[in-house]
Amino acid sequence: MSSTTAGQVIRCKAAVAWEAGKPLVIEEVEVAPPQAMEVRLKILFTSLCHTDVYFWEAKGQTPLFPRIFGHEAGGIVESVGEGVTDLKPGDHALPVFTGECKECRHCKSEESNMCDLLRINTDRGVMLNDGKSRFSINGQPIYHFVGTSTFSEYTVLHVGSVAKINPAAPLDKVCVLSCGISTGLGATLNVAKPKKGSTVAVFGLGAVGLAAAEGARIAGASRIIGVDLNAKRFDEAKKFGVTEFVNPKDHDKPVHEVLAEMTNGGVDRSIECTGSINAMISAFECVHDGWGVAVLVGVPNKDDAFKTHPMNILNERTIKGTFFGNYKPRSDLPSVVEKYMNKELEVEKFITHEVSFSEINKAFEYMLRGEGLRCIIRMDA
Amino acid sequence: MSSTTAGQVIRCKAAVAWEAGKPLVIEEVEVAPPQAMEVRLKILFTSLCHTDVYFWEAKGQTPLFPRIFGHEAGGIVESVGEGVTDLKPGDHALPVFTGECKECRHCKSEESNMCDLLRINTDRGVMLNDGKSRFSINGQPIYHFVGTSTFSEYTVLHVGSVAKINPAAPLDKVCVLSCGISTGLGATLNVAKPKKGSTVAVFGLGAVGLAAAEGARIAGASRIIGVDLNAKRFDEAKKFGVTEFVNPKDHDKPVHEVLAEMTNGGVDRSIECTGSINAMISAFECVHDGWGVAVLVGVPNKDDAFKTHPMNILNERTIKGTFFGNYKPRSDLPSVVEKYMNKELEVEKFITHEVSFSEINKAFEYMLRGEGLRCIIRMDA
Ligand SMILES: NC(=O)c1ccc[n+]([C@@H]2O[C@H](COP(=O)([O-])OP(=O)(O)OC[C@H]3O[C@@H](n4cnc5c(N)ncnc54)[C@H](O)[C@@H]3O)[C@@H](O)[C@H]2O)c1
Ligand SMILES: NC(=O)c1ccc[n+]([C@@H]2O[C@H](COP(=O)([O-])OP(=O)(O)OC[C@H]3O[C@@H](n4cnc5c(N)ncnc54)[C@H](O)[C@@H]3O)[C@@H](O)[C@H]2O)c1
Ligand SMILES: [Zn+2]
Ligand SMILES: [Zn+2]
Ligand SMILES: [Zn+2]
Ligand SMILES: [Zn+2]
Repeated sequence: MSSTTAGQVIRCKAAVAWEAGKPLVIEEVEVAPPQAMEVRLKILFTSLCHTDVYFWEAKGQTPLFPRIFGHEAGGIVESVGEGVTDLKPGDHALPVFTGECKECRHCKSEESNMCDLLRINTDRGVMLNDGKSRFSINGQPIYHFVGTSTFSEYTVLHVGSVAKINPAAPLDKVCVLSCGISTGLGATLNVAKPKKGSTVAVFGLGAVGLAAAEGARIAGASRIIGVDLNAKRFDEAKKFGVTEFVNPKDHDKPVHEVLAEMTNGGVDRSIECTGSINAMISAFECVHDGWGVAVLVGVPNKDDAFKTHPMNILNERTIKGTFFGNYKPRSDLPSVVEKYMNKELEVEKFITHEVSFSEINKAFEYMLRGEGLRCIIRMDA
Repeated sequence: MSSTTAGQVIRCKAAVAWEAGKPLVIEEVEVAPPQAMEVRLKILFTSLCHTDVYFWEAKGQTPLFPRIFGHEAGGIVESVGEGVTDLKPGDHALPVFTGECKECRHCKSEESNMCDLLRINTDRGVMLNDGKSRFSINGQPIYHFVGTSTFSEYTVLHVGSVAKINPAAPLDKVCVLSCGISTGLGATLNVAKPKKGSTVAVFGLGAVGLAAAEGARIAGASRIIGVDLNAKRFDEAKKFGVTEFVNPKDHDKPVHEVLAEMTNGGVDRSIECTGSINAMISAFECVHDGWGVAVLVGVPNKDDAFKTHPMNILNERTIKGTFFGNYKPRSDLPSVVEKYMNKELEVEKFITHEVSFSEINKAFEYMLRGEGLRCIIRMDA
């Protein structure tokens, strides 16, 4: 394959979003060859994440259409552009919405994964190299999304946004590690770092929160308390090691007080995976003084304000934020795949649906109805 | 001495605060023998800290008079009560306003020093054992202050509030390690933990802030930026390794933006030692995304609210609070004294004044005028 298509424009199928909120249309697109420091990837499996839906709905987001969405996926390198030495045709890889250039201050810092060059940018619809798109239909450019655009049989990415992984890993499973699952897992394992036997609260039991709970299970937490406004989430959460449930709606007093009572003063760690500012504040105020750590993962609204009495901080509580679970995509994602390969991390339970590429709009419907967690989209079907 | 006075009431001199804001009066007081788990300490040197002044002024604080203030000091154990095995007469010791029982969840946690039993309590004026004071004048009880009351030739403390130190350490120097200096030092060394070569901002250049700067110097910070509204503080601060100064009054833009410009995006660590809520928020917002850590030390007002946009947190910034620099008083203070003994930590530069016990009100005047940092009060003079 690579020998015949390298350097050539590839014509293939892609699901194009022509307008905000309108069903995607499977079109034949032209995918230009990768330029310097770029990689062309053949996508085998992709899955749908909320971020795709938010930007497709474009409510309050800058609309940019026509666009090819998609950022959770697994694929195989078809060809590489000039200067790419880390990857070669045939490598198995996960595209990642936030990259790692390996050269900026963030990439060089042990603590950060917020690459200056390739940090998520939802407004940019073109490649960095020439400010243009690699996708077109009859000469009309179709915009990229977060540097990945995986709802296409072929896509072009900056090399810094491609994590090379173990070729033995089943791409129809590990594709979900591209975004939400790694985000929640890393929030717990890399940032909250609960000790064995500790008590962990998880706010929001969507895919990200359940992955945070999975992280708590892996870390050996003795109590994992799930907090959600939607009681339907509790059943599914049991599979993820969540041991207790709190629905703030069931209580008259603030949820941080409910948690403090359940835990003799507060939880050891909390991870907020809702995007709700109220949950962010509660997640902070429910941790124990002296040692409690709260980690924010959810993406807030523009006008939100995080507000708490400073004594809550002074009493030796910590609050941190994290982005993609503090994983550096190229350096760290291969080891997350290995966690799955050696059966430490369970990935299957996140995959609740599967559709063929031609049925991609069904995946959107499942997500809009709040049904299930992850829907795998098979590109070959 | 101990052989003749142990078990007896001791009559000695103490500086008694009869009324809020009125000069202390040196009186002859009776000091009862230590009860179970208590220690009677002969104070040789004490120094004055803002907390003494706040509670003596009793503006907005619950007034409790007559009272013997004082909590920074050095002394020698005169006698011990039943059950005390860690200390014996003749031991050199520092009293501490926040204790360590060694048995509660906080004392057993590696991370916390906020002992459930002996955590600072500014409202209590009596001993825990019997709810009574050990000080009296002609039968009238005189209240204790934060379990230390060091403005007396003899005082009684819970054993958990007494740190045994190296008898070779000069008490007229290391007495200042009882409170503010250790607080600032530990905030940097134990909580902010700047790496060698990093950039540290210190908000507030009082004794606590300068001790935080001293911690940054010891940690090998390459830039230490002092922020204070009072330009007079900058001269003194040069002795403490502060390399640059920012007075928020000199700038039109918010101070966190000034710092971000000076440092290419933000400082690596910041330590807030002011008690001002504005400074707390600025200290947080001035740290670099990806890895910045802000540490709050200052004691806020009752009605303050810490308010920031949650994206500032999400972008991988951390905020923490600390109390007494996260030192566990009995376990860790001896090692701070050793830092002084092996010349790693400079203590002399914090000592700007010295008065005899009979002149103790002069120490209050220096502090009220904002003159100098620490005034040592010699009990024998
Ligand atoms: N930081 C990152 O790198 C990153 C990456 C991916 C997703 N995210 C964010 O993580 C969040 C979770 O993503 P998801 O896909 O799991 O979303 P989701 O919508 O599937 O789940 C969110 C859950 O939170 C619950 N919830 C909402 N408000 C609540 C409240 N006040 N208290 C308790 N529960 C509440 C909802 O009922 C829902 O079950 C989103 O904000 C998303 O944008 C962040
Ligand atoms: N957490 C603890 O365990 C602990 C222990 C001791 C003291 N403290 C607190 O630490 C703080 C500092 O103590 P100190 O004795 O050094 O006080 P101090 O009054 O000597 O110094 C405070 C300095 O902060 C400056 N300042 C005030 N507002 C400012 C602002 N908005 N921006 C910049 N600078 C500002 C003042 O000009 C002053 O120089 C106090 O709040 C004190 O209560 C806390
Ligand atoms: Zn996603
Ligand atoms: Zn980078
Ligand atoms: Zn204790
Ligand atoms: Zn003090």
